[in-house]
Amino acid sequence: MAAGVYLDHAATTPMRQVAVDAWVRHAQALNPGGQYTSGRRARSVLDDARETIAALLGCEPVEVIFTASGTEADNIGVQGLFAASESRRVISTPIEHPAVLETVQSLGAEVELLPVDAQGRVSDLSALDTPAALAACMWANNETGAIQPVEQVIGRASAVGTPVHVDAVQVVGHLPVNFAALGATTLAASAHKFGGPRGVGLLLAKRSPAPTGVLHGGGQERGIRPGTVDVAGAAATAAALEEAVSEIPTELGRLRGLRDLLRTGITDLVEDVVFHTTESSLPGHLHMSFPGAEGDSLLMLLDSLGVEASTGSACAAGVNRASHVLLAMGVSEAEARGALRFTLGRTSTESDVKRVLGLIEDVAARARAAGMAF
Amino acid sequence: MAAGVYLDHAATTPMRQVAVDAWVRHAQALNPGGQYTSGRRARSVLDDARETIAALLGCEPVEVIFTASGTEADNIGVQGLFAASESRRVISTPIEHPAVLETVQSLGAEVELLPVDAQGRVSDLSALDTPAALAACMWANNETGAIQPVEQVIGRASAVGTPVHVDAVQVVGHLPVNFAALGATTLAASAHKFGGPRGVGLLLAKRSPAPTGVLHGGGQERGIRPGTVDVAGAAATAAALEEAVSEIPTELGRLRGLRDLLRTGITDLVEDVVFHTTESSLPGHLHMSFPGAEGDSLLMLLDSLGVEASTGSACAAGVNRASHVLLAMGVSEAEARGALRFTLGRTSTESDVKRVLGLIEDVAARARAAGMAF
Repeated sequence: MAAGVYLDHAATTPMRQVAVDAWVRHAQALNPGGQYTSGRRARSVLDDARETIAALLGCEPVEVIFTASGTEADNIGVQGLFAASESRRVISTPIEHPAVLETVQSLGAEVELLPVDAQGRVSDLSALDTPAALAACMWANNETGAIQPVEQVIGRASAVGTPVHVDAVQVVGHLPVNFAALGATTLAASAHKFGGPRGVGLLLAKRSPAPTGVLHGGGQERGIRPGTVDVAGAAATAAALEEAVSEIPTELGRLRGLRDLLRTGITDLVEDVVFHTTESSLPGHLHMSFPGAEGDSLLMLLDSLGVEASTGSACAAGVNRASHVLLAMGVSEAEARGALRFTLGRTSTESDVKRVLGLIEDVAARARAAGMAF
Repeated sequence: MAAGVYLDHAATTPMRQVAVDAWVRHAQALNPGGQYTSGRRARSVLDDARETIAALLGCEPVEVIFTASGTEADNIGVQGLFAASESRRVISTPIEHPAVLETVQSLGAEVELLPVDAQGRVSDLSALDTPAALAACMWANNETGAIQPVEQVIGRASAVGTPVHVDAVQVVGHLPVNFAALGATTLAASAHKFGGPRGVGLLLAKRSPAPTGVLHGGGQERGIRPGTVDVAGAAATAAALEEAVSEIPTELGRLRGLRDLLRTGITDLVEDVVFHTTESSLPGHLHMSFPGAEGDSLLMLLDSLGVEASTGSACAAGVNRASHVLLAMGVSEAEARGALRFTLGRTSTESDVKRVLGLIEDVAARARAAGMAF
């Protein structure tokens, strides 16, 4: 069997060779808190990684907090800004990743979710005119790829003094990011979404207001995230981000071209496909529904033919539930259950797209036939 | 200059080659939650790592939760068992690592700390006879190396239905551990303390009572620790633990021999040294005070001569404060400020010990002379 076609880059990405090399080079870096030569050497590698990341994302080095995942960075942003505030009001959106949405819902706060339109974009920002402990809004949705009006969200929130947490897990390394210009209070990213190692996340956090840490311990990372810092992981993340950011200008157009080829091909080949990815989306996302089919059947059939994709809302347990994002967009539950997400990335090629187009008609037909049997 | 003598193995350890190799071998493992071939392949690597670790630590694979650090595992154990209970009473000890002690103190709980004797061992367990949300007791202290009576703590606590969290960060990979036989509810370990990668921790967690997760998100790791699991890190951890556990029988005696050589030599060479490490300690620990000297001066002088050590209580910011562990043992603040910790480990040799003995007399004298200038 030929190598599989990997079209789940929004879930995780193959690690870049520069990241693997950086990790191996610094695997023996010891405790950057050690008051001795090898400790200072580790500290210097960590400082370099922090400075590289800061320069690439338009922030100060002190604003870069290393975490273990985008999930952890989101949790610190949301839980931490809430804990640092006296307000009990929190504003978010119904299309956030569970790392934000479940965290928001766990706070015991008075939660207000901004409405979302049929394009999957936050559509009415007026709730932001009343101050809150924080507003949490993702930069781009992980399922549909829809880019959110984060600048406007931050502008409206800032006008009344509300700190804003931005989940930029799908954006960092894929679109240009300038934290200072953006004006967010905290911003979350994940290394493995841009070719870095799994197990490293980034929280960009302004000096003030600063989030309270969620974990307690040795006071590392400005006291916001304790634990011996993984220097090799930090160095690998910086190396991956540097390469990813340098490729953005060419990758943006290339991925959009491949994605549009895929969309046009599917439109031509399969009847009655509903695309959830519309204008103003991440370049590699193509999210759609095949009404009458079950997402899991589509995945299984595709996988059997060597194509790796997602329904977009897969949870860890693999239970097929209608996506909360699609439901928030007004998609019916039946249609939402037939969701399929292709996300192209750095390793994707035109031949990958052609391979999918060569089998999608048959896969859709078979999944729909199976769906009728339910 | 000759290569440094690294005597801070309790802080972090050089990564074992088997761990580096395992990481590199699985660096490209993708999302173990992916419903396709490469996802299942990653899942299988993760399952293997989990099974290896479970077999080595005497628990079921489902009881192994991958975290990002010992700190995170401690936080989940403490915060999570507290959140899962209706009791507001928490029992711990005054000599816990900040990852436990600060977490316990952050809960807003009614906290009772068990008394500690001059040997640095928990000495009166009667507080455990009254039920609590949890009891948190470390297996061995990170500063002095003193092994705690965890079996008795668990026995007394279990008799009244109190779950017990054990911080075993200094023990796993260094002494035999059998989670089932121990009877703890949760247990924390850190991969980089036994030659594994930095950035990976382990929480062993019984099925019931299970801790509530501290982070919210995608439901991975029994919902106790969300975020895409770092498969390469998990595989590297399993490889390191396997080698570490296999070496325990020989390392125990070897390290104890080197440590005793170091202790005897220092006793012979330097007057008025107070050893805080006594019987029943981890084999590689030697913690002591040089009254009249400042710990930071000792570290600086040792470092200038190529010996890397710790005061034992270094916090991330490098501020020299008297150790809370020594103070709890009844050591005076002045004496506690002259603390020095050598922790030997896998890479330590007799020549390392001789090198230290060749310079300790001079270092102690100079640090004491500097101390008198204060």
